[in-house]
Amino acid sequence: MLSSLRVRNIVWKQASLIKRSYNASAQLPDLTKDRYQVKRGDYSQVTDADVGFFQSILENSRVLLDESDTQSYNIDFMKSVRGFSRVVLKPKTTEEVSGILRYCNDRKLAVCPQGGNTGLVGGSVPVFDEIVVSTQLMNRIDNIDELSGTLECQSGCILEQLEQAVSEKGLCMPLDLGAKGSCHIGGNVSTNAGGIRLLRYGNLHGSVLGVEAVKADGTVLDLMSNFKKDNTGYHLKHMFIGSEGTLGFLTKVSIFCPTASRAINVAFLGLESYDAVLKTFLAAKRDLGEILSSCEMIDQEALDCSLNAFNLRSPISKYPFYMLIETSGSRMDHDEEKLNNFLQHVMEKRLVLDGTVTNEPGKMKAIWEPRETIGSAMFEDCYSFSYDISVPLKNFYDMVEATKKQIGSLPATVFGFGHIGDSNLHLIVKCKEYDTEIHRRLEPFVYEYTSKLCGSISSEHGIGFLKTNYLKYSKKSECFDVMKEVKRLMDPNGILNPYKVLPKKFV
Amino acid sequence: MLSSLRVRNIVWKQASLIKRSYNASAQLPDLTKDRYQVKRGDYSQVTDADVGFFQSILENSRVLLDESDTQSYNIDFMKSVRGFSRVVLKPKTTEEVSGILRYCNDRKLAVCPQGGNTGLVGGSVPVFDEIVVSTQLMNRIDNIDELSGTLECQSGCILEQLEQAVSEKGLCMPLDLGAKGSCHIGGNVSTNAGGIRLLRYGNLHGSVLGVEAVKADGTVLDLMSNFKKDNTGYHLKHMFIGSEGTLGFLTKVSIFCPTASRAINVAFLGLESYDAVLKTFLAAKRDLGEILSSCEMIDQEALDCSLNAFNLRSPISKYPFYMLIETSGSRMDHDEEKLNNFLQHVMEKRLVLDGTVTNEPGKMKAIWEPRETIGSAMFEDCYSFSYDISVPLKNFYDMVEATKKQIGSLPATVFGFGHIGDSNLHLIVKCKEYDTEIHRRLEPFVYEYTSKLCGSISSEHGIGFLKTNYLKYSKKSECFDVMKEVKRLMDPNGILNPYKVLPKKFV
Repeated sequence: MLSSLRVRNIVWKQASLIKRSYNASAQLPDLTKDRYQVKRGDYSQVTDADVGFFQSILENSRVLLDESDTQSYNIDFMKSVRGFSRVVLKPKTTEEVSGILRYCNDRKLAVCPQGGNTGLVGGSVPVFDEIVVSTQLMNRIDNIDELSGTLECQSGCILEQLEQAVSEKGLCMPLDLGAKGSCHIGGNVSTNAGGIRLLRYGNLHGSVLGVEAVKADGTVLDLMSNFKKDNTGYHLKHMFIGSEGTLGFLTKVSIFCPTASRAINVAFLGLESYDAVLKTFLAAKRDLGEILSSCEMIDQEALDCSLNAFNLRSPISKYPFYMLIETSGSRMDHDEEKLNNFLQHVMEKRLVLDGTVTNEPGKMKAIWEPRETIGSAMFEDCYSFSYDISVPLKNFYDMVEATKKQIGSLPATVFGFGHIGDSNLHLIVKCKEYDTEIHRRLEPFVYEYTSKLCGSISSEHGIGFLKTNYLKYSKKSECFDVMKEVKRLMDPNGILNPYKVLPKKFV
Repeated sequence: MLSSLRVRNIVWKQASLIKRSYNASAQLPDLTKDRYQVKRGDYSQVTDADVGFFQSILENSRVLLDESDTQSYNIDFMKSVRGFSRVVLKPKTTEEVSGILRYCNDRKLAVCPQGGNTGLVGGSVPVFDEIVVSTQLMNRIDNIDELSGTLECQSGCILEQLEQAVSEKGLCMPLDLGAKGSCHIGGNVSTNAGGIRLLRYGNLHGSVLGVEAVKADGTVLDLMSNFKKDNTGYHLKHMFIGSEGTLGFLTKVSIFCPTASRAINVAFLGLESYDAVLKTFLAAKRDLGEILSSCEMIDQEALDCSLNAFNLRSPISKYPFYMLIETSGSRMDHDEEKLNNFLQHVMEKRLVLDGTVTNEPGKMKAIWEPRETIGSAMFEDCYSFSYDISVPLKNFYDMVEATKKQIGSLPATVFGFGHIGDSNLHLIVKCKEYDTEIHRRLEPFVYEYTSKLCGSISSEHGIGFLKTNYLKYSKKSECFDVMKEVKRLMDPNGILNPYKVLPKKFV
């Protein structure tokens, strides 16, 4: 089973690229059940009577049944997985979600909650014929309070639209990621999405103030709150953050939104060694302190990948390593001074050998572009094995070196890039096409090595369908036991997003 | 039951005051079981054979049996609750905690986990004869990684000692609170402690990267991680953050530690109205942005309370409202400039009528002192009813006004102060001595009013023993059902910290 998985965990930063990659008319991927040899769970089949019930609580236009309508809900945008649900439901309210789940639970009908369907681990589409319940029409913003910096909205709001709405009140969303033009906030929260602002504002367990969630049996849990300080009983909302729709269906969220920054600067630096990268990161933390908002590492092969694929120009000449450092703060003159002092310091110490810095929007975009497009470049006319891991910073690049050694003379390029500020490495092995021998060399090697370093085998993408068998490299069996019990408690019939997150033997 | 509770939720900021308030030789408070008429759960009584077992796994010196040794573990430092445990155990290792809990679970012996015993809601001492398991000797720091800013340590480390240790590496703890000289990090995490850095660094659900916890049956759950990005299955660690020792016993924690600030400034301002306070807070968020680290509101009566009690001098002349604003950042000149511009702006707009600003340590301490001592001043030769709530900022001070109206001509002073930056109000009703009529006017009035405003009835102190009956004002019955099920799942015999957090009828 392990070696038959073709894990494609692609990282990218531009909604436009994500949209580009989905083309319904192109050849369909294999059905997940066939490609991954999965056995269907003991769920009921959807009958005409079931459809009749759904049509009785939603208008007909919100019960999609035609294959032409349901197809896009059955395939992830990476085309790595495909299910064959014949029913897609589009509730607008919490009550409708509750009615749907209560019915499905009674009938033992499996359900696949779906947001923007931008996930990278096959968690958001059905594996078999699970009924898709989409948050597409749950997109109401209930309140933005500029005083306390809180946003309350339904779970189907698109991240970019929320950013636009809160920015009108001088606030910003605490998360930003490539799929922002499509992804739903409910999906972000369900998957504990990471992204490029995490270094500054932390992860969603800190930013999400409250949720409303519907249990598998239709019970509505009102865990909404607008307070960072709220110690009233067990903090149940966290059960729904990062459990990828397997413990409940998110219908509303409340999120803390920081004050928007007025000044942004970007620097692109060239360095000789990973040791210099590390020392520069430490200096950036010290010298830039509260204004440091992104710190990325890119090795030469990673940058070459996007430069060559999209015919881009490098911001600086060739170096073994590059760093992209972003600051954001409330005063441009102060931030520029801090950044200049930092750069002077690291260049005097010969840690940084070359660099360019700007605060002009067009130039900042041009600097971010080669970094942001690596994730799609690595699939341009080639195949890439891609791993999204967290590893201790002192071993961050060892992982790439060890993988190079492991691949040896096989025809592949190994490179690494990622959010060094958050210890998050994207390790890529790029080859002409999918190659069984390379795959065999890589897995379970990469997961075992990550585990030895006490790293995390899924940093920001989650487990979904594609990584369930690797979870054991990051969690011990006692933890699986509790996860299994929590799943049983919240969803005794196992109707919510089956085949996802937990390895089969633990469900 | 409701009216018989004398809730004393005192907020203060100085470890010295906390130490001062505990005096073992003074008159003992009533036993909790008598004062609050509690019925003992169906637990076994500790026998000599049990003591023998504990002595077989710990040395005799770590099994306290003498009343003179166990007394301080049976009383909270506020003297609001008192139990009568005859056994206090002091494990040093996770394995010892596991052995103790496994045995207690098999024997149905109730256990009270205890850290620094600085809690304010009676959660950290036994109600009856629960065996106290103290983290006092679990104080090993395992690792401080200055690169990624992570601290790993045992749960009995004292917060102030951790601050000292991480500051030597240029880092700071993400939390700071009055009891720092005594409180244990395991207790902080178990109670999701708030404090004065929360505005800047968020709450512990964001800062805690991993925990090691022992379940009631002795199973050790290794949920340690050093990564802000780690999406590997259900995020179980959050079950132990804020559940006050009722779901498991924390043995280790891993915490993200931000870079320490180099520059600190403090301003103390006088204002005419709450409306001006609100507008000034909004201006501070906008103008001070990333360097704003504390924003406190104090009304005139609150300041008078500490000035009079401790014969302190006010930093400025009399105003209906005061604000204390602190900045912390990486460049003193920049921060001073930002702060001066902000002050000029709010004074030109006549929002702030008077103020003083300093970055000299002695003067900063003198400015913080009247704010920090309110919590103890309100018990100097008087009695105070004290409430720790979160309310929306637009209604923040309505709460005080409404309570004044409710108290009417009864002999009491109503005032408010607190962390306006986190929507956290401390509402105080100070009177000569405990008064039944005043109590009747206040409860459930305050909780009902908080609930109507969609506020939280416990902002940073938790529920513990003293607030279980008020939890219903902040959480709905469906949520209680899930909390109860989670408790049963983690601790089917209910041995962990009984009588705490959940209302009796839900246990």
